[in-house]
Amino acid sequence: MTDSSPSGPRRRARALGLRVGRYAPGPHNAITDVVGVRVGHTTLIEGKASRARHKGGGPVRTGVTAIIPGVEDPFHQRVMGGHFVLNGAGEVSGLTQVAEWGLIETPILLTNTLSVGTASHACVRWMVDRYPGIGDEHDVVIPLVGECDDSWLNDIAGHHVKAEHVVAAIEGARSGPVAEGNVGGGTGMVTCDLSGGIGTSSRRLPKADGAYTVGVLVMSNFGHLADLRMDGIPVGALLAPDLAALKKRRRAYGSIIAVAATDAPLSAHQLNRIAKRVALGIGRAGSFAAHGSGEIVLTFSTANRVPRGPRRARPFTVELLRDTQVDPLYRAAVEATEEAILNAICAADTLDGVMGHLAPGMPLDRVQHIIERHYTLRADLAHASTAPG
Amino acid sequence: MTDSSPSGPRRRARALGLRVGRYAPGPHNAITDVVGVRVGHTTLIEGKASRARHKGGGPVRTGVTAIIPGVEDPFHQRVMGGHFVLNGAGEVSGLTQVAEWGLIETPILLTNTLSVGTASHACVRWMVDRYPGIGDEHDVVIPLVGECDDSWLNDIAGHHVKAEHVVAAIEGARSGPVAEGNVGGGTGMVTCDLSGGIGTSSRRLPKADGAYTVGVLVMSNFGHLADLRMDGIPVGALLAPDLAALKKRRRAYGSIIAVAATDAPLSAHQLNRIAKRVALGIGRAGSFAAHGSGEIVLTFSTANRVPRGPRRARPFTVELLRDTQVDPLYRAAVEATEEAILNAICAADTLDGVMGHLAPGMPLDRVQHIIERHYTLRADLAHASTAPG
Amino acid sequence: MTDSSPSGPRRRARALGLRVGRYAPGPHNAITDVVGVRVGHTTLIEGKASRARHKGGGPVRTGVTAIIPGVEDPFHQRVMGGHFVLNGAGEVSGLTQVAEWGLIETPILLTNTLSVGTASHACVRWMVDRYPGIGDEHDVVIPLVGECDDSWLNDIAGHHVKAEHVVAAIEGARSGPVAEGNVGGGTGMVTCDLSGGIGTSSRRLPKADGAYTVGVLVMSNFGHLADLRMDGIPVGALLAPDLAALKKRRRAYGSIIAVAATDAPLSAHQLNRIAKRVALGIGRAGSFAAHGSGEIVLTFSTANRVPRGPRRARPFTVELLRDTQVDPLYRAAVEATEEAILNAICAADTLDGVMGHLAPGMPLDRVQHIIERHYTLRADLAHASTAPG
Amino acid sequence: MTDSSPSGPRRRARALGLRVGRYAPGPHNAITDVVGVRVGHTTLIEGKASRARHKGGGPVRTGVTAIIPGVEDPFHQRVMGGHFVLNGAGEVSGLTQVAEWGLIETPILLTNTLSVGTASHACVRWMVDRYPGIGDEHDVVIPLVGECDDSWLNDIAGHHVKAEHVVAAIEGARSGPVAEGNVGGGTGMVTCDLSGGIGTSSRRLPKADGAYTVGVLVMSNFGHLADLRMDGIPVGALLAPDLAALKKRRRAYGSIIAVAATDAPLSAHQLNRIAKRVALGIGRAGSFAAHGSGEIVLTFSTANRVPRGPRRARPFTVELLRDTQVDPLYRAAVEATEEAILNAICAADTLDGVMGHLAPGMPLDRVQHIIERHYTLRADLAHASTAPG
Repeated sequence: MTDSSPSGPRRRARALGLRVGRYAPGPHNAITDVVGVRVGHTTLIEGKASRARHKGGGPVRTGVTAIIPGVEDPFHQRVMGGHFVLNGAGEVSGLTQVAEWGLIETPILLTNTLSVGTASHACVRWMVDRYPGIGDEHDVVIPLVGECDDSWLNDIAGHHVKAEHVVAAIEGARSGPVAEGNVGGGTGMVTCDLSGGIGTSSRRLPKADGAYTVGVLVMSNFGHLADLRMDGIPVGALLAPDLAALKKRRRAYGSIIAVAATDAPLSAHQLNRIAKRVALGIGRAGSFAAHGSGEIVLTFSTANRVPRGPRRARPFTVELLRDTQVDPLYRAAVEATEEAILNAICAADTLDGVMGHLAPGMPLDRVQHIIERHYTLRADLAHASTAPG
Repeated sequence: MTDSSPSGPRRRARALGLRVGRYAPGPHNAITDVVGVRVGHTTLIEGKASRARHKGGGPVRTGVTAIIPGVEDPFHQRVMGGHFVLNGAGEVSGLTQVAEWGLIETPILLTNTLSVGTASHACVRWMVDRYPGIGDEHDVVIPLVGECDDSWLNDIAGHHVKAEHVVAAIEGARSGPVAEGNVGGGTGMVTCDLSGGIGTSSRRLPKADGAYTVGVLVMSNFGHLADLRMDGIPVGALLAPDLAALKKRRRAYGSIIAVAATDAPLSAHQLNRIAKRVALGIGRAGSFAAHGSGEIVLTFSTANRVPRGPRRARPFTVELLRDTQVDPLYRAAVEATEEAILNAICAADTLDGVMGHLAPGMPLDRVQHIIERHYTLRADLAHASTAPG
Repeated sequence: MTDSSPSGPRRRARALGLRVGRYAPGPHNAITDVVGVRVGHTTLIEGKASRARHKGGGPVRTGVTAIIPGVEDPFHQRVMGGHFVLNGAGEVSGLTQVAEWGLIETPILLTNTLSVGTASHACVRWMVDRYPGIGDEHDVVIPLVGECDDSWLNDIAGHHVKAEHVVAAIEGARSGPVAEGNVGGGTGMVTCDLSGGIGTSSRRLPKADGAYTVGVLVMSNFGHLADLRMDGIPVGALLAPDLAALKKRRRAYGSIIAVAATDAPLSAHQLNRIAKRVALGIGRAGSFAAHGSGEIVLTFSTANRVPRGPRRARPFTVELLRDTQVDPLYRAAVEATEEAILNAICAADTLDGVMGHLAPGMPLDRVQHIIERHYTLRADLAHASTAPG
Repeated sequence: MTDSSPSGPRRRARALGLRVGRYAPGPHNAITDVVGVRVGHTTLIEGKASRARHKGGGPVRTGVTAIIPGVEDPFHQRVMGGHFVLNGAGEVSGLTQVAEWGLIETPILLTNTLSVGTASHACVRWMVDRYPGIGDEHDVVIPLVGECDDSWLNDIAGHHVKAEHVVAAIEGARSGPVAEGNVGGGTGMVTCDLSGGIGTSSRRLPKADGAYTVGVLVMSNFGHLADLRMDGIPVGALLAPDLAALKKRRRAYGSIIAVAATDAPLSAHQLNRIAKRVALGIGRAGSFAAHGSGEIVLTFSTANRVPRGPRRARPFTVELLRDTQVDPLYRAAVEATEEAILNAICAADTLDGVMGHLAPGMPLDRVQHIIERHYTLRADLAHASTAPG
């Protein structure tokens, strides 16, 4: 693979034949399969690749992704939220409050490390314009903004993400299919040495288990190629020789921010537990959660609304899942997380950026072949097992 | 004060004139003011004080306290529960599961350090007899058993707490007034160098704040006399000279287990937050949470029932308090905790035990005088403030 | 008290006769008594009080405080750090990383809620200029920036804190006495309805306990007047009638960020434990840690340096305190925290700001009188106790 | 496979050709490769399988495992310790204190759920006999005792583990090879529907990474067959049809206690981080950490001794690894954990017990074939990759 060779039309992991886990995905195999969840991206790719790094001079390889947590107005119709920090060498602005309150009351934004402040302020301003009570009758709002460092490709110090880009991501958020790969906050990001930032996947539980949906969206920027696994298949190790020619590889391990949504009626406390299973899914894709990595998980449930309201209002009523019924959701969270990461890589095209750096797109045909060969072997072995002996 | 001088008929802190905080207590000023919560004690005081410590030879100064968390059958009608570890040099058996599940499904037992296993097994057996499904259709049950070390007075190595004592505490649990001082699990315990183990208090919120009740029960075994404060009054420092004649004082700092109940409809997540405020109340009474201290808080809400049930049952419905309405409960938790600790001391009589050790009862008349003088001064100063200048 | 009445020349709490706790303060009774710790303030007070709130139009009542954690170059000579979140409705940017790494490698900055991003970016830029390796050979640096909301007095939406103010606070950081009250990040802040933002205090342990120093600095912006206690004396309740005439009082409960430093050789793990005792000190001053409050504690030890260094370097050597020796430090942390908060109030002058809001300075003469009367009573009662009966 | 068919002579996973991860194991591929760590088992297998469950009547399928954490006398030469709770529906007695103190000062014991008290008391008595100061000059000691529920095979209510069995495990602890499978605390346990309780594995880092060793020992009792993976190969799903004939399968998901040791000089804080990576390893073997599972990790480092000592002793000196150097240890912890679980299964023979329950031994020849076929395919695909195109 050379800089000039295109990595071909992109497909999702499932289009390569991959089947992760037991449950089927929802209609879009995306976090938006959780009804009401919407996703918007602002993607900023400008300027040619450069051999140097001139602050402000580009090239620009960055953006913002906004996730609307399942309600029209997250400020007045808050949802329950949870989190888990697998490794904390990163930031999700607003995380301390989610941990304390178990509530999410803003869009969730994903962007590069140096644009957290811009994203946060732009979101506050957007919310204040829209919901005039904020900061007046209500306390200050603290948006959730997760970050990874895209400086391997992006002129990060140029602060190219502006308030209008943040607002565009929020206002452009849609249900339905979600763009993946080099888009939104993940535009300039790299997963396991390959191009790949934003990925998503979902699982729909069988009717007998409640027919709930779990959707995961990741901004993925972590890992080493040799560790990459797809449904247990050591794809990264098999690809490594192909990519050995890459002149430069990122030294840093990187980070990943994962957001999991569900329509199952879970409490904040249960959502913290879901977040730990997302971490297991990150581990299955190949992460060992390196020292310098910010591996942070946010989770929310769209099932209940947590009202604001006058100080002396009545309690509100929620439905909650029985705790003995969470296991299928745990399993779904592991599965969807693994597949979301793989989708981020499969969907991302080769991209070059600052300092002559290059993030190669995954060679999809070769990966499809690797997967097919493994699945064929599995089928052979399964058949052997049941054959009359 | 000498070993022979009785410390007089015991009274509660409020009978000394003390008024901690803003809110009024419930009718019994006890954890049982939370409707449905019941408390039972088995108190074991046998044998004369001894100059030595003969394992198994007494004297016995120990017992068990049982708290039934507001339901007839905690196994099938579980309640939401929380916790906080202020300092973890101690054990509450079952704590890990409360932290994980946010549920309480057994009586809560309080006893001495070496009787945790006995209490736990006796409770399991009692529950299995009563609720035949356990361990069969349901998973194993793990009772909540908190401990403090009563070896300053008690022949702890004699293992004098037997299964029947545990069952008697559970089955003897009643609503209404709660015995305090040298009773139940707190029988042989010492608080701030004074006699005092079990104490309780409650707060009832004004109607405008929901008329909820918060009740706290402590098994208190911590601290140094000089640090003891009652409503901010440095009572311990003032008493210290009186007690300087005590030949021996416990070297260890000790521990405290606090249990807070409320009928406010709080989630597990909010109950963890309540538990932190109980810790603030422990601090106000004079604890700095020493290195060797097990300062562990359990909390539960009687408002909702968390059903067990078939794997494919429907979600259940609960009421939850709006998060903006928890502040009065936080305040009530701080207040009731401070007063519960003070009640443990005020109610406890002088008690002697092993090795010639003695835990003197608080000299109540003197303390009443100290409090009165302070309250008179406060009234004087308040009056001065509003006098026309 | 009216807007025109000055609240008199400001004094520290100790100058009013107050004596909190057992241990003596260090020479400056400040966090800077921990050798090497330096503090700098940029204070922005501009414009007359206004009846309205015009974004950008002032008045300006804000600033930045910088704490240099005991080393010349915190990036290359990192110190061990810890934290505790008493209530998490606020932000300390960089907190997740401190929790993960147990290290502090940047100045600690304190400012208003909407200036966190500015402070963080300015600090990164300052560090990159000074320590060229950052972001190149080393991973990105995440500064610690704590915030409270000063919008009761300050035109917070005007974003008056600029990068140069941040740099000025860092570069102006000095050892020795520390300005308190309406200065630095705490300029426009209010504690228990009184003026008061920055306060500090320290404790020096006796030689037999290692002669270690614990210093605390708070940016205090929390609470209700009626709850304020000084060494257990209900000063706030006694002052409340005087201040009843105040036309407007802040509705929000506010927040507090506390930073504790020590030269005792503590590990990250032990520093987390120290942070919990700082929380107890906050509770003693009158906080019940309200739902909407960001009560966040950072701690660090200057005793050891944690080197960066080549990937294959040898382990480094540190000294650690025996765990059985931490109790005096715990006690010192509680004491210094309470006094730091009280110093913030005592040192702060009456200040007016936006919307006709006013933060009255504590009436020091009256408070001194209240304290004196209480201490006289305590002395009387102590004397009575030892009098021959 | 039928009840009567033996599952053949047992081998370890590596003897089947399996190679998990990047690093090589230590000489015994066991936790004892960390110098000084010793392991002892008492295995209790008595009585024939039974169709019923008669409390006390057997059959007995249980035991105790003791891990001595790398020192002759763990009470006086304490080591630093950490933990992580992946899912907390279980108990490690003493865990709260490890979390608080970051120290391990007792043997670590593993046994069945109802023998935790017996194991704890026996250990305390053994320590008191051996180190007379305990409970006298020193505070009470709280042993670490982890449990899983072996009631699928064992007459657990018969309480067959006695104090002498606990002491025998402690005193029989040895360095060198460690027995695996149906031994010690794991005797009656089941992993992914197969027989298998105790397993161990280790990794030795290359010299350039410090030549440190990470060893893991698990008492494994979790999971469903269909989820079992070996180096990513879906062995469980392939075996499932063979085992479909099993009349009864355990309904409960079970639990796992994992203990990781290292000679790398890590602090308590870093050991907590290692424990999270052990959780990732559990996830790779096939766990999704079910609701009812107690998945609890303990970690310790043998590199430093944490002395007890007089209250006024000097600080002690330790070596610590640079934080940037922990990544190879994280990776090693993931690898050794996965392999330890697989060893528990590979080493365990078919075992029957109460109620006609049977835990079949893994069919090793078939698994070896599955692994060989996969590794052959991987080699083919790797070759293809580098072939001239």
